[in-house]
Amino acid sequence: MSMNLKKILIGTPLSEEHLEHQKIGKAKALAVLSSDALSSVAYATEEILIPLMAFSVAAISWSLPIALAIVLLIIMITLSYRQTISAYPNGGGAYTVAKENLGTKAGLVAGAALLIDYVLTVAVSVAAGIENIGSAFPFIYAHREIFCILIIFILTIVNLRGIKDSSTIFAFPTYFFIFSFILMIAFGLYKVALGESPTPPDLIIHEAYPVIPYFLLMKAFASGCSALTGIEAISNGVQLFKKPHAKNAKKTMLWMSAILGFLFLGLSVLAHYYQITPKEDETVVSTIASSVFGKSTVFYFLVQSSTALILILAANTSYADFPRLSSLMAKDGYLPRQLASLGDRLVFSNGILGLGLCASLLIFLFGGETHHLIPLYAVGVFLSFTLSQLGMVIHHFKIKEPGWIQSGTINAIGAIVTGVVLVIIASTKFTSGAWMAILLIPYMAFAFSRIRSHYNITAKQLGKQSSTFVPGEIDHITVIPISGLHPGAMDAIAYAKTISTNITLCYVDVNKTATEEMILKCKNVVPSIKLEILPSPYRSIISPMIEYIDKLRNESPHRLITVIIPEFITSKWYHNFLHNQTALWLMAFLRNKKRVIVTSIRYHLE
Amino acid sequence: MSMNLKKILIGTPLSEEHLEHQKIGKAKALAVLSSDALSSVAYATEEILIPLMAFSVAAISWSLPIALAIVLLIIMITLSYRQTISAYPNGGGAYTVAKENLGTKAGLVAGAALLIDYVLTVAVSVAAGIENIGSAFPFIYAHREIFCILIIFILTIVNLRGIKDSSTIFAFPTYFFIFSFILMIAFGLYKVALGESPTPPDLIIHEAYPVIPYFLLMKAFASGCSALTGIEAISNGVQLFKKPHAKNAKKTMLWMSAILGFLFLGLSVLAHYYQITPKEDETVVSTIASSVFGKSTVFYFLVQSSTALILILAANTSYADFPRLSSLMAKDGYLPRQLASLGDRLVFSNGILGLGLCASLLIFLFGGETHHLIPLYAVGVFLSFTLSQLGMVIHHFKIKEPGWIQSGTINAIGAIVTGVVLVIIASTKFTSGAWMAILLIPYMAFAFSRIRSHYNITAKQLGKQSSTFVPGEIDHITVIPISGLHPGAMDAIAYAKTISTNITLCYVDVNKTATEEMILKCKNVVPSIKLEILPSPYRSIISPMIEYIDKLRNESPHRLITVIIPEFITSKWYHNFLHNQTALWLMAFLRNKKRVIVTSIRYHLE
Repeated sequence: MSMNLKKILIGTPLSEEHLEHQKIGKAKALAVLSSDALSSVAYATEEILIPLMAFSVAAISWSLPIALAIVLLIIMITLSYRQTISAYPNGGGAYTVAKENLGTKAGLVAGAALLIDYVLTVAVSVAAGIENIGSAFPFIYAHREIFCILIIFILTIVNLRGIKDSSTIFAFPTYFFIFSFILMIAFGLYKVALGESPTPPDLIIHEAYPVIPYFLLMKAFASGCSALTGIEAISNGVQLFKKPHAKNAKKTMLWMSAILGFLFLGLSVLAHYYQITPKEDETVVSTIASSVFGKSTVFYFLVQSSTALILILAANTSYADFPRLSSLMAKDGYLPRQLASLGDRLVFSNGILGLGLCASLLIFLFGGETHHLIPLYAVGVFLSFTLSQLGMVIHHFKIKEPGWIQSGTINAIGAIVTGVVLVIIASTKFTSGAWMAILLIPYMAFAFSRIRSHYNITAKQLGKQSSTFVPGEIDHITVIPISGLHPGAMDAIAYAKTISTNITLCYVDVNKTATEEMILKCKNVVPSIKLEILPSPYRSIISPMIEYIDKLRNESPHRLITVIIPEFITSKWYHNFLHNQTALWLMAFLRNKKRVIVTSIRYHLE
Repeated sequence: MSMNLKKILIGTPLSEEHLEHQKIGKAKALAVLSSDALSSVAYATEEILIPLMAFSVAAISWSLPIALAIVLLIIMITLSYRQTISAYPNGGGAYTVAKENLGTKAGLVAGAALLIDYVLTVAVSVAAGIENIGSAFPFIYAHREIFCILIIFILTIVNLRGIKDSSTIFAFPTYFFIFSFILMIAFGLYKVALGESPTPPDLIIHEAYPVIPYFLLMKAFASGCSALTGIEAISNGVQLFKKPHAKNAKKTMLWMSAILGFLFLGLSVLAHYYQITPKEDETVVSTIASSVFGKSTVFYFLVQSSTALILILAANTSYADFPRLSSLMAKDGYLPRQLASLGDRLVFSNGILGLGLCASLLIFLFGGETHHLIPLYAVGVFLSFTLSQLGMVIHHFKIKEPGWIQSGTINAIGAIVTGVVLVIIASTKFTSGAWMAILLIPYMAFAFSRIRSHYNITAKQLGKQSSTFVPGEIDHITVIPISGLHPGAMDAIAYAKTISTNITLCYVDVNKTATEEMILKCKNVVPSIKLEILPSPYRSIISPMIEYIDKLRNESPHRLITVIIPEFITSKWYHNFLHNQTALWLMAFLRNKKRVIVTSIRYHLE
């Protein structure tokens, strides 16, 4: 039955010959990998306006130069990551780049930062999307935790089915979002050109920039850098593209950044010309859309619904990247190796499940409140940017490919800028959550290296191809714990006789009458076999057995003991509650005993 | 560590020679077994007044005759249960009496009713006690579910330590309650005699009884019958008394009923003379106490605190009776036999734990709201009374001991009265919760008989003293699933060689390169042993192994297959998360395969 449920939810298994078929074209890859980056358009402009507005309404005029600076940053990071795709066509992003160029520790820090970001992307995007829908439907808002977890569940299932299915599902909303935003920007600018915007354009253009503190400017810039979250997704997912992987990925990266830059800048320009100020109860996107189209038009509804949709689907980027990065790290031995194995639908099922669980846990712990999570998020994003670009600088120095000085300079500037942004975010938002990331990332990096050393030690021990048994050890001291001379016990005795001549039956004395009966029965039925009666003053069954086996181990320190346990198997699983499960307990307690071999003989009840 | 925690919470194990020492004297037994019955004094008078008050204030004058009728009922039931103690000195109460005289079905119905009542006693008493304390401390009231569960936890621990320890803890509050209530009644009546009560006594005495509907009178009587809950506790706990069990139990029963009757009647008389009417926000006991002593006196505080205390401790009666009844039913095969075994502190630990869990679950499900539970409660109480007394009538007819006609008549009247009360409760409270009991009790009785039939079938199968193996079957087809030629696998091969000549290594092909390496290695290291490469198109490890073993079983339908599984044991438990646990999964999947014997060879990692 659970097999059928799995088939319905996940689909039938796929054999490896389908692997190449799961690769996807550029247009679909753009949809799958860019929803995270593009969805940040929904809040990045607002993030710039809020700190400026907090200073003065006049300060808002700084938003356009800041937006231009961020577009410059988008271009720089895009160029940098295109070089990464060329240098690392197998994918891997910040983790691989940092590890190979800056050393293992830097790689593990980048890996930890990225993994945290992927989980946060799911939690934050889904929560923000549900909040968006929820502001229209109070019922959904009141139960937003449950709806968030439901959405995460659906995303998990869709991704467990495999990436090709997902791309078909996710292509539509991404392009729907791009289309509706381009429509809004074009129509908005058309109205500006016709002089139909709320304020005449010539009044705005000649406005002066007021003097504001340099730190505030940096803070607004840093806040606006949220537009860059998710931009690295394509460089991590190069393997997902049809061949030639790298070339297709680089083209797609360019397209994504161009769309991102255009939408972000377009929105900022509209906000500027329409003199939009952030409001308490309405998003900037909603304010712009209502100014451009009017609030009760179909177009307003298009913009709003596509925004909500892409926010939820941004989470899907992580479902492509988290399992891929964790499988990469697992193959390197830094994460449990279960994360490295392909599931029966040719996806890294354990990584997908792990991501879904972690994101659900975050939603549950923070009650669907995104504001506490975002500072933690930003630290990780810019830490991985900085490490990745520092790594690329070193890479250029090492390889010295044609034009390496120019490339290295771009990467170096990128590293400095993202590093400065990182320091600003970490310092201005330390008390409001960034401290968690600052504590968690090094701790995770340390745990990764511990996992690696465990695997190293294990591999060393398993490397020998020799038995640990000394030939003389295997002379089969055989112990059979019994509760009566039932067919299960008789089976065990019959089996023991074929492998050993040294057989002892063990019976725990918890009731004098029953014990005497048992002694008599054994004399009659199995007179040739030794019966050991174990006293149990405190009526425990397990302890006397374990103590007896320990005694045997001490008496013969160089011999192996085979414990043959007769076990009942009930015909219905719930019948197990009616039996003591002594066999299972005994097996569990014998797990850590050296030189003890446990054989389970099952007697099936009808 | 968990052993030490157990020792601190539960105490050191006791051997069986302490068993007789755990028997307790009459004074302590009264404290342990009567808190449930006596605590009902705290609400029984109020229960009579509420329906009368709902009709008219004048109707309240009927409360005294009703209280007298209930005292008569207490006397009748006491006489009846004293006969039960004589007839059944081994205890068992309604379950035993009904089963032996009315047949198994009636016994199981009585057993179900009693078990439900014991769980409800814990839930209702603890919740009522916490509500009582909570009305003084808003913090406790706001978190009453948690406090209820905390109290249940403490009761469970105290009872797991053993009944002698408990009786010492519980003797004080019971006697404190009796003392404070006797003091209140005596002082209250003294004030009446001095003419200091609010209304002059002679005015009340000559008051006429107004005409009220017969049904209302019956309803008030039925509600007041809540004074009788718990009265059967002593007849179930005869074994707990020092020898002579029966004689001591009968004496204690008499004392308990006398105290119960005196307190109940005393309180009703005071309510009558002080013209107490039930209030929304104050209990009748509190109103009486404040009328007698004044609200800010030490005596008022004594009465209130002893009431809260005995309500919580009433739950303890169930901790004596639930484990005892369930062990009795388990010995008869109607409940899982784990409930019949004495724990290492000489108490039925599983019954105590089960009661604590069920009561906590009820508190959790009903949010600590007692009102929904009480109708369910009353149905069970009077169903067991009725069955028990009907059983006693049949008993007298069968045995025909000296004076059996008189005894039989008492029991018959008791059965009719309790039967009528049962019908009234079930009909007037059907929609408000009694339906649950009416559905649950027969369902439970059916489940009990199913459990018995499972044990019967099992016992029949285990009764044979012969092996199910045909001697020729045990020629050891041996299969060793391996993931590599590590020392664990080499140990398994060495072991297999000593028990069989038919050995096959199984390796699942999930990676062509690794498989080719494996074939080469096996040729070099273990050239004499057959290697079977199992294809796995969907990359599963377990399924191909299971399919291969199934194939072997089909090929040799009359032979046994020994699967030797090399298993790693990690040195720290959490290291297990870093390994695939294929061995454990394989063992689980092989559980239901007939003619498959599983041997686990453990290789301990350092």
